[in-house]
Amino acid sequence: MTKYWLFIAIGFATLAVSGCSRPQKVDLAAEESAIRRADAEWLAAATAHDLERTLPFWSDDATILAPGMPAVVGKDAIRKYVAGAFATPGFSITWKTDRVEVSQSGDMAYSSGSDRMSYNGPDGKPVTEASNSVDVWKKQPDGSWKCVLDVMSPSAPPGGK
Amino acid sequence: MTKYWLFIAIGFATLAVSGCSRPQKVDLAAEESAIRRADAEWLAAATAHDLERTLPFWSDDATILAPGMPAVVGKDAIRKYVAGAFATPGFSITWKTDRVEVSQSGDMAYSSGSDRMSYNGPDGKPVTEASNSVDVWKKQPDGSWKCVLDVMSPSAPPGGK
Repeated sequence: MTKYWLFIAIGFATLAVSGCSRPQKVDLAAEESAIRRADAEWLAAATAHDLERTLPFWSDDATILAPGMPAVVGKDAIRKYVAGAFATPGFSITWKTDRVEVSQSGDMAYSSGSDRMSYNGPDGKPVTEASNSVDVWKKQPDGSWKCVLDVMSPSAPPGGK
Repeated sequence: MTKYWLFIAIGFATLAVSGCSRPQKVDLAAEESAIRRADAEWLAAATAHDLERTLPFWSDDATILAPGMPAVVGKDAIRKYVAGAFATPGFSITWKTDRVEVSQSGDMAYSSGSDRMSYNGPDGKPVTEASNSVDVWKKQPDGSWKCVLDVMSPSAPPGGK
């Protein structure tokens, strides 16, 4: 009988040690794929100038840091900014996402890549702005990934292409 | 004797259950403080134009995305870029870090704030560039936090202050 309890004690001890040393692992590759999928859907929506499909990829409290203007903070300001861009004559946007890296806990990630935005300038001539870009992503309570911080830094001097 | 092993089994069972349901918690406030401390030391080193004290705050594979120029990738390129900045007549830099947010696992974080860089232009007159900035930080194997991605986006149009 003593031996019987001994085995139970050893069993639970093993469980205790393994349970403590191996907390639930996040599938980082799956999370990276989820972000790349969201990013591709976001790009498709933005390319189509579909405001209502584009906006949900920013969190409600997101910030956009676009070159040459004050920070755009929160969903209302982002709606105004994006609607204004989509309404600009000759507007188009595209981007390419290179790196995506997810934190071990799968709650935060960042991506980097490059953007290209075009629109007609005041003289009607097309202007193209190339940027390097970084997005900070956070996993939402519903499991989706949203951008909380969206930064663009011009990759060429003003006037340079 | 049987009772003795029974108590040990119950003890380990409790440990197993609590160990599994409560994975080691990261002290997020302490990690945020560590990043703010590193950031303050970094600022002091950069303000003093001390290259060797400034460089270690970027990881060896870090990227700087500064406005109007290609990405600066890796410690050698960063050394050249920062040494060049420090050697520029009239150069000064300062920054203010607002938000710092750490992932639940304490391995990744981001900070945002604003930068101000000044230098003498080609005509000898001082030029000031104000930027919004975002840094992505990663905890290193030695426990220190380093910047892996450092982005500046001009906060005013060219020529505007």
